[in-house]
Amino acid sequence: MTLVETLQKTDEYKCWLRYERKKDLANIEALKKIVVLEKTEIIKSAVEELKRGILSITGIEPEVIADREGNNSAIVLATVDSSNMTTLNRSLNNDGYMLQSFTKPKERIYLTGKTDKGVLYAAFHFLRILQTNRDYQQLDIIENPKTQLRMINHWDNMDGSIERGYAGHSIFFENNQFILDYGRIKDYARLMASIGINGISINNVNVHKAETNLITKELLPDVAKVANIFRQYGIRLFLSINYASTIEIGGLSTADPLDPQVREWWTKKTAEIYQYIEDFGGFVVKADSEHRPGPFTYNRNHADGANMLGEALLPFDGIVIWRCFVYDCLQDWRDRTTDRAKAAYDHFKPLDGQFLENVILQIKNGPMDFQVREPVSPLFGAMPETNQVLEFQITQEYTGQQKHLCYLIPQWKKVLDFDTYAKGEGSTVKKVVDGTLFHYKYSGISAVTNIGNESSWTGHILAQANLYGYGRLIWNPDLPEATITDEWVTQTFGKHPKILNTVKEMLADSWSIYEKYTAPLGVGWMVNPNHHYGPNVDGYEYSPWGTYHFADWKGIGVNRTKKDGTGYTEQYFPENFDMYESVETCPDELVLFFHHVPYTHVLKSGTTVIQHIYNTHFEGVEDVENLLESWISLNGFVDEKRYNDILQRLTIQLEHSKEWRDIINTYFYRKSGINDELNRVIY
Amino acid sequence: MTLVETLQKTDEYKCWLRYERKKDLANIEALKKIVVLEKTEIIKSAVEELKRGILSITGIEPEVIADREGNNSAIVLATVDSSNMTTLNRSLNNDGYMLQSFTKPKERIYLTGKTDKGVLYAAFHFLRILQTNRDYQQLDIIENPKTQLRMINHWDNMDGSIERGYAGHSIFFENNQFILDYGRIKDYARLMASIGINGISINNVNVHKAETNLITKELLPDVAKVANIFRQYGIRLFLSINYASTIEIGGLSTADPLDPQVREWWTKKTAEIYQYIEDFGGFVVKADSEHRPGPFTYNRNHADGANMLGEALLPFDGIVIWRCFVYDCLQDWRDRTTDRAKAAYDHFKPLDGQFLENVILQIKNGPMDFQVREPVSPLFGAMPETNQVLEFQITQEYTGQQKHLCYLIPQWKKVLDFDTYAKGEGSTVKKVVDGTLFHYKYSGISAVTNIGNESSWTGHILAQANLYGYGRLIWNPDLPEATITDEWVTQTFGKHPKILNTVKEMLADSWSIYEKYTAPLGVGWMVNPNHHYGPNVDGYEYSPWGTYHFADWKGIGVNRTKKDGTGYTEQYFPENFDMYESVETCPDELVLFFHHVPYTHVLKSGTTVIQHIYNTHFEGVEDVENLLESWISLNGFVDEKRYNDILQRLTIQLEHSKEWRDIINTYFYRKSGINDELNRVIY
Repeated sequence: MTLVETLQKTDEYKCWLRYERKKDLANIEALKKIVVLEKTEIIKSAVEELKRGILSITGIEPEVIADREGNNSAIVLATVDSSNMTTLNRSLNNDGYMLQSFTKPKERIYLTGKTDKGVLYAAFHFLRILQTNRDYQQLDIIENPKTQLRMINHWDNMDGSIERGYAGHSIFFENNQFILDYGRIKDYARLMASIGINGISINNVNVHKAETNLITKELLPDVAKVANIFRQYGIRLFLSINYASTIEIGGLSTADPLDPQVREWWTKKTAEIYQYIEDFGGFVVKADSEHRPGPFTYNRNHADGANMLGEALLPFDGIVIWRCFVYDCLQDWRDRTTDRAKAAYDHFKPLDGQFLENVILQIKNGPMDFQVREPVSPLFGAMPETNQVLEFQITQEYTGQQKHLCYLIPQWKKVLDFDTYAKGEGSTVKKVVDGTLFHYKYSGISAVTNIGNESSWTGHILAQANLYGYGRLIWNPDLPEATITDEWVTQTFGKHPKILNTVKEMLADSWSIYEKYTAPLGVGWMVNPNHHYGPNVDGYEYSPWGTYHFADWKGIGVNRTKKDGTGYTEQYFPENFDMYESVETCPDELVLFFHHVPYTHVLKSGTTVIQHIYNTHFEGVEDVENLLESWISLNGFVDEKRYNDILQRLTIQLEHSKEWRDIINTYFYRKSGINDELNRVIY
Repeated sequence: MTLVETLQKTDEYKCWLRYERKKDLANIEALKKIVVLEKTEIIKSAVEELKRGILSITGIEPEVIADREGNNSAIVLATVDSSNMTTLNRSLNNDGYMLQSFTKPKERIYLTGKTDKGVLYAAFHFLRILQTNRDYQQLDIIENPKTQLRMINHWDNMDGSIERGYAGHSIFFENNQFILDYGRIKDYARLMASIGINGISINNVNVHKAETNLITKELLPDVAKVANIFRQYGIRLFLSINYASTIEIGGLSTADPLDPQVREWWTKKTAEIYQYIEDFGGFVVKADSEHRPGPFTYNRNHADGANMLGEALLPFDGIVIWRCFVYDCLQDWRDRTTDRAKAAYDHFKPLDGQFLENVILQIKNGPMDFQVREPVSPLFGAMPETNQVLEFQITQEYTGQQKHLCYLIPQWKKVLDFDTYAKGEGSTVKKVVDGTLFHYKYSGISAVTNIGNESSWTGHILAQANLYGYGRLIWNPDLPEATITDEWVTQTFGKHPKILNTVKEMLADSWSIYEKYTAPLGVGWMVNPNHHYGPNVDGYEYSPWGTYHFADWKGIGVNRTKKDGTGYTEQYFPENFDMYESVETCPDELVLFFHHVPYTHVLKSGTTVIQHIYNTHFEGVEDVENLLESWISLNGFVDEKRYNDILQRLTIQLEHSKEWRDIINTYFYRKSGINDELNRVIY
């Protein structure tokens, strides 16, 4: 058996596509036959998945038969066109589909997609229904993804390492070459398609020497092999490119985006890429950021840089995903006027309307960098004339690095539901990034993945919930958290109500627990530099990264008000400006992000800032103790391997949460001299 | 030309063996001829060095002639025996020598050593006299090194890296192999012999996998080649060994020092080493320290471990240098009773008298780890029955990493002159480690070197002064700092009084300047973890390393008193105990090492602790500005290459000293809330 074949037998590797045996589904006639009205590569994948899933669930592999007339009970796969249900066209968007079941005269289950991709999504949806014990006989579902681009970004390097990866090495690369065993990549594509992902960039946005060569003749044949697998699952492949490629590999002496030679090079290069990969998605670009090259070198702006690439991609329907994570990373900590939080807005807002139609700005959810708590980036909704994509981080860089349990769906929902007031009340972020608010040509959501080559894909098995939930949530940002969690737990661990209730509760509380024992009240950044794990209150305080808390003997926080601070609050539309500008209306959880207040400042919760710090840090650890106990209560309900793996991580989490508690409390006690009202142990 | 030949032409590579042309010595007859009364490998080296030096100084290479009768003016090289001056034997110790010059009937300069090593030392001494413009015609000098073992430790790894190295890579190893070009090693041996070094361990005390194999048949032939070069310059080669070698390479399942098989393995292994290297020096051992294996694993003590090796080395006159840097590096920062400073004494003092005669304990100068300021280790003088060697650190791990100028001779003199009171007043450290206080069989001084394969050997060219000064000082701990500095500056930069006075002053002040802008009042450790460069007040505060300052809103420092602290003061003899125990008598520069005091505590200097912190940090930067100006005043007096190189380092030092100043001042201002009396800028 190959390594992948061995892995494929384990529950941790199967993730939510476990297809557990269901005795009550053993003898359903309709599950024994599949009728295919149109054959494409993608529909072939759908058939394969249905066969695999139904065999596993019922013990019988369905047979593919020709039966257009409906003489047999069967599952019927078709596109709108092949099934002649053209009226459906009005109800479905490009990736939409319909699930319908009829019991008479024969039991027929129709999985009908607008295109073959819809068929594949419908197949996964149907299997999910079987897995989660929902009634498959009364199906009458029309499903359309609300988000157009549903992207995953890898931060994989060709040496096999993953920047901010906590689950092993890359599944694509090792030793500066492609991994030539594609079994795992196919399983990865299945997982991603099952949650609706339709675009994946496979390499790190920090494009170093080796990865710069991904767009050369030497490596494009290997890139194409991965793209071929992705294509079977409705996923377009993207590459992160080095902005200075013309210099690094193009033999030119410049990367000036207005230089005709540079433009010509990119035009030819892009055409070459499409010779290898006809449905190539496009480029992801981190330029002029954290020492990456970019148009600033040539006194050009980001529109110049992005449009140059956009022009080259336009004939092929390719897109440029241009990241807005641009800020001064060589700031002087002594300078309190410069505010990193303002950087993305300041750089990009003035360029609204100047970008080509196939250029999309990718904006991190918050203005800083994936902290456990940040406000929503004010750039959302601020550029009516520019395509926008939201960027989340599934990999838990600042949220416990898959050693700590931190379910991020609640955080992401809060972001998506945030009202920007860009066009008055109801201008939520989700309406910005689903393109409805401003009718963007392109829009969507992207995220840095948390997977690697460990057997569980995500290191912490419970972190699979973040990956699953990400896909489901961006398919439909209105899905309730509880629905997503229910689906995931049931597919991953089975239907036992004790498991469901316990794990669901653990997940639901985990973000807030993690926040409690780490950086308080939105201030962020109290981590060890570089690797970003573990408490270090002053870790970034005297650094050039623009990430400060300004704690002194009297108080803490960053004054970002218009009145007497950095003026960051002005970047919001008036309703939000008003809310954040005043310490009276600023929500507690962000008070230190927006205001510098004394430790004795009384929060809306009724406690002082210092007492809040003490309370939450003691509570946080108690909460982790409860998480651990909850999990221990599942001993015997979950297979031993996954039980022990998760037990081990929670044990580490408990130990490390105590480190957080004691260091944070001690730091603030030593600095403020204010005693804990409850006289708990502080060192 | 080979790389080494190219380097050999540069002043920075020649260091203090530049042998600058002296017009006034051009026509001295005695310098044109050399008479050799006894021929050994070492005397051959002496002749070679005299030829090289005199050719360079006078333009004429001296000729070796046979002239026992004294018919020619000449330099005469002889041992006591070959010259029949046996009465000299009473005046010379093993490495001693006499320099005598006669002008009649012929000008004869006698370089007479007790052994051939003495002849070599005399030759270097004579060349130094020529270089430093001292009168060579009136010589009547008897010179005996006061220290028996004059050691250099390398922390070189076989992959070429150097732990705590700031001057490039290893001159011995690269890519896990020996470097087969020995030209540089020979030049290194020349430099070391010129300052009297007689033992060098070539590999890191942290012995990893590759270096464990240095004592195998595969690598011993290569080790022997290095030893052969060293031997020509009177230097014995030592190896750091892996305490668990019996397991790693010996095929045994244990490293228990009392296990007969283990003992037998070491006996055979040692005999094997001596087959390759007849004058092999012995083993340097870091055991049970910072995750290194050791006898504790087998419930044995350090005497058991060291004696096992000592027994194996005894028949060959080899020695064991057993390091006392043993402490708990997984301490809980919350625990204020455990005190890392106490560890060496607690571990080793009870074993006094239990070590074999060829085992030597190597003790770091202070109880912590080479901080810019520490008290002297209380272990010195505390073990009358046990050979002791003092360990200094020439490489500037905590003293600016050869980016900052920090001349360490003043620090080392302070250590050597420290009175332990072990046998009443006058029981200085230098008398302990020269073996006179307790008549140790073996004693001496060791240091971690600061060299690497950069062209200047030491990165910062002025750091060559630390290497030179180390050798000269341990040869004779009574040598005044000024004498050492004069010698070094003149040999390195020539005799111009402006250079001498300027550089001498720069060096003299530099340690105290570095101390001013870094960690105050002996508290230490306010550096970034791991690499130990740059300010980070809390860098080690919540770590497991036992390195804390306990600063809070009221005060700072570690209470190490017997009265109500960790009791570390009790490890000193009564006179020093009294001095350190009371905050009234504790010297200012160590007050925070021994006491936790309020920021408002008034020092003997008359300022408060907090004001002292502010003052010294502002002054320190001003002092660096002056250092830079001083150096700039030498523009035109020093060759351009060395001028610019040093200028660049001083510029970096100035920039980084401002980082220190502002971060330290800001940290304490933010914590204490106490204003600077002079209202200077604190952030």
